[in-house]
Amino acid sequence: MGLERPRPSYEILSGATADVYFARANSILDREGLDPVVLMEVFCREDAVICGMGEATNLLGHVLADEPGAVVEAMEDGDLVTPKEVVLRIHARYRAFALYETAILGMLAQSTGWATAARQCVEAAAPPPVISFGARHVHPDITDVLDYAAIVGGCVGASTPAGARLAGLNPTGTMPHSLVLIFGDTVAAAEAFDRDMPPDVPRIVLVDTFRDEAEEALRVARALGDRLYGIRLDTPSERGRVTAALVTEVRARLDQAGFGHVTISVSGGLTPERIRYFRDEGAPVDAFAVGSHISGASPIDFTGDIKEIDGSPIAKRGRIPGRTESPRLKPLDLAAWREG
Amino acid sequence: MGLERPRPSYEILSGATADVYFARANSILDREGLDPVVLMEVFCREDAVICGMGEATNLLGHVLADEPGAVVEAMEDGDLVTPKEVVLRIHARYRAFALYETAILGMLAQSTGWATAARQCVEAAAPPPVISFGARHVHPDITDVLDYAAIVGGCVGASTPAGARLAGLNPTGTMPHSLVLIFGDTVAAAEAFDRDMPPDVPRIVLVDTFRDEAEEALRVARALGDRLYGIRLDTPSERGRVTAALVTEVRARLDQAGFGHVTISVSGGLTPERIRYFRDEGAPVDAFAVGSHISGASPIDFTGDIKEIDGSPIAKRGRIPGRTESPRLKPLDLAAWREG
Amino acid sequence: MGLERPRPSYEILSGATADVYFARANSILDREGLDPVVLMEVFCREDAVICGMGEATNLLGHVLADEPGAVVEAMEDGDLVTPKEVVLRIHARYRAFALYETAILGMLAQSTGWATAARQCVEAAAPPPVISFGARHVHPDITDVLDYAAIVGGCVGASTPAGARLAGLNPTGTMPHSLVLIFGDTVAAAEAFDRDMPPDVPRIVLVDTFRDEAEEALRVARALGDRLYGIRLDTPSERGRVTAALVTEVRARLDQAGFGHVTISVSGGLTPERIRYFRDEGAPVDAFAVGSHISGASPIDFTGDIKEIDGSPIAKRGRIPGRTESPRLKPLDLAAWREG
Amino acid sequence: MGLERPRPSYEILSGATADVYFARANSILDREGLDPVVLMEVFCREDAVICGMGEATNLLGHVLADEPGAVVEAMEDGDLVTPKEVVLRIHARYRAFALYETAILGMLAQSTGWATAARQCVEAAAPPPVISFGARHVHPDITDVLDYAAIVGGCVGASTPAGARLAGLNPTGTMPHSLVLIFGDTVAAAEAFDRDMPPDVPRIVLVDTFRDEAEEALRVARALGDRLYGIRLDTPSERGRVTAALVTEVRARLDQAGFGHVTISVSGGLTPERIRYFRDEGAPVDAFAVGSHISGASPIDFTGDIKEIDGSPIAKRGRIPGRTESPRLKPLDLAAWREG
Amino acid sequence: MGLERPRPSYEILSGATADVYFARANSILDREGLDPVVLMEVFCREDAVICGMGEATNLLGHVLADEPGAVVEAMEDGDLVTPKEVVLRIHARYRAFALYETAILGMLAQSTGWATAARQCVEAAAPPPVISFGARHVHPDITDVLDYAAIVGGCVGASTPAGARLAGLNPTGTMPHSLVLIFGDTVAAAEAFDRDMPPDVPRIVLVDTFRDEAEEALRVARALGDRLYGIRLDTPSERGRVTAALVTEVRARLDQAGFGHVTISVSGGLTPERIRYFRDEGAPVDAFAVGSHISGASPIDFTGDIKEIDGSPIAKRGRIPGRTESPRLKPLDLAAWREG
Amino acid sequence: MGLERPRPSYEILSGATADVYFARANSILDREGLDPVVLMEVFCREDAVICGMGEATNLLGHVLADEPGAVVEAMEDGDLVTPKEVVLRIHARYRAFALYETAILGMLAQSTGWATAARQCVEAAAPPPVISFGARHVHPDITDVLDYAAIVGGCVGASTPAGARLAGLNPTGTMPHSLVLIFGDTVAAAEAFDRDMPPDVPRIVLVDTFRDEAEEALRVARALGDRLYGIRLDTPSERGRVTAALVTEVRARLDQAGFGHVTISVSGGLTPERIRYFRDEGAPVDAFAVGSHISGASPIDFTGDIKEIDGSPIAKRGRIPGRTESPRLKPLDLAAWREG
Repeated sequence: MGLERPRPSYEILSGATADVYFARANSILDREGLDPVVLMEVFCREDAVICGMGEATNLLGHVLADEPGAVVEAMEDGDLVTPKEVVLRIHARYRAFALYETAILGMLAQSTGWATAARQCVEAAAPPPVISFGARHVHPDITDVLDYAAIVGGCVGASTPAGARLAGLNPTGTMPHSLVLIFGDTVAAAEAFDRDMPPDVPRIVLVDTFRDEAEEALRVARALGDRLYGIRLDTPSERGRVTAALVTEVRARLDQAGFGHVTISVSGGLTPERIRYFRDEGAPVDAFAVGSHISGASPIDFTGDIKEIDGSPIAKRGRIPGRTESPRLKPLDLAAWREG
Repeated sequence: MGLERPRPSYEILSGATADVYFARANSILDREGLDPVVLMEVFCREDAVICGMGEATNLLGHVLADEPGAVVEAMEDGDLVTPKEVVLRIHARYRAFALYETAILGMLAQSTGWATAARQCVEAAAPPPVISFGARHVHPDITDVLDYAAIVGGCVGASTPAGARLAGLNPTGTMPHSLVLIFGDTVAAAEAFDRDMPPDVPRIVLVDTFRDEAEEALRVARALGDRLYGIRLDTPSERGRVTAALVTEVRARLDQAGFGHVTISVSGGLTPERIRYFRDEGAPVDAFAVGSHISGASPIDFTGDIKEIDGSPIAKRGRIPGRTESPRLKPLDLAAWREG
Repeated sequence: MGLERPRPSYEILSGATADVYFARANSILDREGLDPVVLMEVFCREDAVICGMGEATNLLGHVLADEPGAVVEAMEDGDLVTPKEVVLRIHARYRAFALYETAILGMLAQSTGWATAARQCVEAAAPPPVISFGARHVHPDITDVLDYAAIVGGCVGASTPAGARLAGLNPTGTMPHSLVLIFGDTVAAAEAFDRDMPPDVPRIVLVDTFRDEAEEALRVARALGDRLYGIRLDTPSERGRVTAALVTEVRARLDQAGFGHVTISVSGGLTPERIRYFRDEGAPVDAFAVGSHISGASPIDFTGDIKEIDGSPIAKRGRIPGRTESPRLKPLDLAAWREG
Repeated sequence: MGLERPRPSYEILSGATADVYFARANSILDREGLDPVVLMEVFCREDAVICGMGEATNLLGHVLADEPGAVVEAMEDGDLVTPKEVVLRIHARYRAFALYETAILGMLAQSTGWATAARQCVEAAAPPPVISFGARHVHPDITDVLDYAAIVGGCVGASTPAGARLAGLNPTGTMPHSLVLIFGDTVAAAEAFDRDMPPDVPRIVLVDTFRDEAEEALRVARALGDRLYGIRLDTPSERGRVTAALVTEVRARLDQAGFGHVTISVSGGLTPERIRYFRDEGAPVDAFAVGSHISGASPIDFTGDIKEIDGSPIAKRGRIPGRTESPRLKPLDLAAWREG
Repeated sequence: MGLERPRPSYEILSGATADVYFARANSILDREGLDPVVLMEVFCREDAVICGMGEATNLLGHVLADEPGAVVEAMEDGDLVTPKEVVLRIHARYRAFALYETAILGMLAQSTGWATAARQCVEAAAPPPVISFGARHVHPDITDVLDYAAIVGGCVGASTPAGARLAGLNPTGTMPHSLVLIFGDTVAAAEAFDRDMPPDVPRIVLVDTFRDEAEEALRVARALGDRLYGIRLDTPSERGRVTAALVTEVRARLDQAGFGHVTISVSGGLTPERIRYFRDEGAPVDAFAVGSHISGASPIDFTGDIKEIDGSPIAKRGRIPGRTESPRLKPLDLAAWREG
Repeated sequence: MGLERPRPSYEILSGATADVYFARANSILDREGLDPVVLMEVFCREDAVICGMGEATNLLGHVLADEPGAVVEAMEDGDLVTPKEVVLRIHARYRAFALYETAILGMLAQSTGWATAARQCVEAAAPPPVISFGARHVHPDITDVLDYAAIVGGCVGASTPAGARLAGLNPTGTMPHSLVLIFGDTVAAAEAFDRDMPPDVPRIVLVDTFRDEAEEALRVARALGDRLYGIRLDTPSERGRVTAALVTEVRARLDQAGFGHVTISVSGGLTPERIRYFRDEGAPVDAFAVGSHISGASPIDFTGDIKEIDGSPIAKRGRIPGRTESPRLKPLDLAAWREG
């Protein structure tokens, strides 16, 4: 698995998405004839699952490939880090990369926030798997990044083709309520889904649109029989959300009717606490589909500190000058970005 | 002010960023020969400042411009809405827009989350203004969207050129700590900034890099004199963050030395609560620069419900069938998107 | 309205239900030749709706009817009292009534506890009415007492024939889940109910047994038409209990289908807080059926203090000797109990 | 020990104390010619000490003795059960017992509530014993039921003759404050008690009526000498209630004066928390007399669910159809109720 | 009223009670030939009742009486100040007073802490008066200072002769428990007190030593009749402390027996909260005797800042240089300390 | 170590600092010809480090040296006691010592309060030592007592010459902010301190007066080199107080510059919680200087109870008569106080 994104966009490379003060700093240093070699270290202040590093190093690769003497050392997507641990170190001419600090920190902050939140859900749910469904909460320009981060955090699937492509998986999903509404009946929609979808798409049917979930689950199971892979419970908050007792009851009613093979997925406002509630109550959930807990996770703030200038230790007030011992960093082969 | 973004990206238009089940639904309906005209209503569940609607309607404009009978009614960016109020209504063939539901909800969710958080800061700070500095917490592909949302929420400035361009403003910013570190002295950095920047860039100098803020503020004021527009206090948490007493003291020391014209901006972990603390303590802050409270705001979840199919009221369980009375919606002129 | 209970039971009159120490005290006083005239005052320590006083004074009437000089003064069922206010005063030979102190305090404690809890619900719900359904939580020997107390506290109905008889009302109720289960279908059960019950019994149908409430409500309304008086929502906790949104949705769906005349009753774990939730959310509830909040209310402790003996003020430690000013007490006509 | 109550009252057998909807259901089924054999299971939702089952099965014995094929299986009074565990199962013609569901649930709810609360006190106090004194908080028609439940919960004594009779014990008690007040002196009252009571009644004297408890305890001990079994401390809340230090001091003063044989009972607002306070402070209490914590305990709600009809599994929404595995239930010998 | 203390002790004047670094600073300045005129301002950080200022200015008067140009401005004992308000300003040669900073701050800190706590009690109790009884909690060398501070804070009396002398009052007090214990009976002790004390000492008798307070109060009142001024209730915590109900009961029993003239004082763990409890409950307390809430009050920290040196504004980091506007300060007539 | 204070003051010996009721009690007993031998026991109600006992026994030695048969048994300063443990027992004629009860309890209360608070800090800080700096919070007449108590509680130093003398140590301290302000520069002040102080005074320099602490620490270290013993961080609350990160940073900067020998002391609002924060964060603090947590500690209330009179056990209500088993008490050699 690895995030394969092409050459960074013109917007990023031009600095248009950077804090304006970096452009100004570059301009001032240019006029003053200054361009020291600096050592920058990047860290965050909490336990986190690193993500976005593939994108960040790709950007650094593009801008530093031809820079003599430049060294980049980094953690990898999926690494777990502790507070203040260095996750990225850049040793290069300041003006060669200064303009990209905002972009690099942003890539790390947002993806690490998502991956860390995903991991909280995955740990709460295990062994049942977690699927990420949050695309509807983030801007479409970054749904792929979200889905990739969710998978780095341990989710087994994500819902957008773009995100799945980044993660090297197929997208996962069931059917929208709108499909059931248009067919006017869950069984009719399920039968069409079964008729029209390729055989490798698992038949998972939403059963809360029109009727009681237990009744609908049995109707769908009777209609699709062995071809039914599972049902998804997504009871809206207006109807009390999915409860552990509902899952247990639906499981029992399916088993009593001979549909022990039908899996049960749960969605709707899931958080690690809510997932633990299902597990503590012994509810037989086969998979959890998580939306806003992952997609709505706040970014995790990363800081880039200059720790050496032309070889001399230095730091702003509040930080300790000089290179930090960081044995887990791995050097980047910048040559790989050089264009033939 | 208005968000001017060009034709939506191929990724969006192709549905690659959509939940996969929408593509599947379209495919099934196509095979089944179904394509009813539906009425979809979009709402959220909290008080919010609507943002992202310009983008969302631009996308709808592109996909529905040539659709006979299609009607789109919407709120506008900056509108304040209450829980469950309809903010967008689409009346069109389902398959003409189904694939874009994920994108539309994502545009609204993320921008509205940011704009609403920005407004909380702006209300806490007023009359002093608020500037948004959060670019480093979000993916560079959407820093422009963040900055625009912050300004819709009431901020007077944002830090990226791309964001400022979207909002029709100039980007705002001071100088990075790295510039001061490279010059090795705040006054030297300030003098270079003053020497090299165009006259319309306000001279605002960071004074917490090397020395005590009060000492440095006076040194900078003596060096730049009347050309100094202001100082920014950004004391790191390791040094106790900026306190109200520090602002008061620096103001007093500047005034006693004859630098009453020098403004004081504050940054570093600001939230509405923290802003109120400064105001309650009577600290003479001239501007607040807010980062993660805005950029780290969780998206506000939007829901799209089908309420009519081919003219008949319908709704899934938990919702009320039929069109909701929504006098504040304004119709969109879809013809404007038609290509000559 | 008035509690009409016949001659107290042999068990009560014999002292078998009294604390044994009262029998012992009587025996000792007898052997010692002591039998002073005492003044006893009864009070509780909280705000309360007095109930059980009809029973208590009936008992005193039976035992003191022929006692020369005996005086009983009392509040009436339904009176609101404040902490430490005297609610009952007995001036008589000690041995003439000592054995009944336990019974009198018990009648007051339990009924006052129920009536006070009922009133809390009634005040939270008004103007919609409250019905008491708690018979299943108390011993069958006192369900009539419970139902009477609930009505004293302001309920408009109670569910047992015995209780209703005490309060001079008809019992209220809908149908048990078991009836629906036996018919195998809510509509079939509703039609039988409609066919077989006298016309003055309102047709109120439980709609949560087999199917979704909104679906079932419409089915029943279509089957019974104008003869349907109302539906009752009693969603079990396993399905998230009744929510305000469910009531609102069912109301809307009934109205849209032309069944605006069908009322909605709610039951299931109702408390004053829960009732206020429905009202705060604007849920269109027509009646609340309350069970355990009333029937499970703790008794309100009453204390009987001797304050005079043979005309001299006296009291145990912690109490103030002598008669307490109590203008709200009304004298009892003991002669009414004398047997022709 | 076993609750021996005679033939259930006419009120119960006639259904007058039942929720009216059961009578209606019976009437409808009669008119419709329906009378299936049903399986009903009864359970509660918390940890509990079962009580009231003797009464409930007595009622079922009376009504089902001559019913062919009827089977009743039940727990016994004093059994500890866990949430949702089946405590009673009835397999019989529905109309043969439907009218008694309210009575059965009420017997179980109230007695189980009391027994469970009693056990909490007993566990907090052990090894010193607990006596139940709550008759004054409940209606005199059920003081015997209360006292029996307290003893099922582990109390060693209860205060009413009727209750003691049910439990096969003698009633326990000391003397009322009124006796002391009439004698005008605790010692005089104690001497009369000693003079007039049979020798098997333990001499336990209340010592808080007129004077300081420590002073009075010594005066009484000197007056009765070896015949004094114990004293009871019941300091009113107006005087700060009984404290652990008071018990310790009275114990020390009695011991110093040679009255080491005199026991100390404590009463007044005792709860498990308060009992634990005495034990944690090391107060030498010999017995605890508990009132309202037991008598004021809320009923524990029991539910009766139909799980089979004519042999087919069924259940309302929220419950799992079919017979629940319940190995602890024991079958009832219904023949024992058949009249010669 | 005013604190008249003689020449400060040798220990204070020699600097032995000062922080050693002041002696060192003086020695260094002497060797370096430095002795500027400084302006020092003293303030605290909370709302407070100033006390100890009489002592502090007396010390300054002694050391600065002959210092040319020295100016001292100060608040007075009993003044209420707000946070950061200047309470004392000294303008003099640094070495003339530097050694006394510790002593001056200590005098203010401890006395202001006590006076402020006393005022909280006085405000909670008013109109009934408060008496300070805290001598047993502080070192005997400063009981006079404590008593004086309590009176500055609003107490009407204090218990030590030395403290009363400072405040120009007679000491107040009743009798110790030991006197009652030695006489073996409260009435015997009260009669001796009445026999032996001068007529101007009010007869206030402790009534909780041996017997119940209500009983003892009546016995003492009967013994001393009109000569009894009052009783004091001081029930120990082992007996539940004094309750509002006890005061009410004793008042009622005294009044019923014709002793309406006997006052009731309360003591024992009183705090402003506890005093408010008595008032909220309507307990007829005539006086409150407060101990540890006043004597155990933490000192209120005072800070002395140098704000000018030889006429130039200066301040350490965290403070604002230069003289603070302080119109409430009054100049001290230093000449009054000059020795003829 | 031992507290050597001379003959108690005239104020104490005359009873002027005693509660006036003791003088009255003595006068009454004198007139009544009573003077029994009593046994008095003194205890407190919490875990404590006993202090003030040296002073208290010195006072008892002076007043009981010539009293035939008098016995005093006591704990020693520094002993740890538990709630209600007897710490002092006096067996003597009542009138021989009654007047000194207030003084004895006051000595114990205040010193024990301070010593106990000091020990809390010492335990939180260990192994780094704690120094007491609280003289500025207490009256100068008792700063020596405070400093002695702090050392009894485990502090390794205290700041006043008088206190140090009592404890047999040299006073400890650095330099006041005023010295730095007068020199106008920390380095200049440090150099003068180094030039003028005897060589045995450790060179510890305050580094927060004018400039940033990290900058100033390096300037001072460069100026004094090996002669610098340490720096003290005392950042004011207006600048966020000392943080763990500041200590870590200053340590790192000193080490990087070759000043590993320079120690770091921390002061400013330290409490056990705050000390634990530094330790939990791993901040390399070498010594903690604690002020108001020790000097502002509330006195610990001591009670003196008469438990025997002329050999007979007795006690007031709430206490247990007679001598308490107290094996840890040691008898005092009263003969040592007899004057040749």
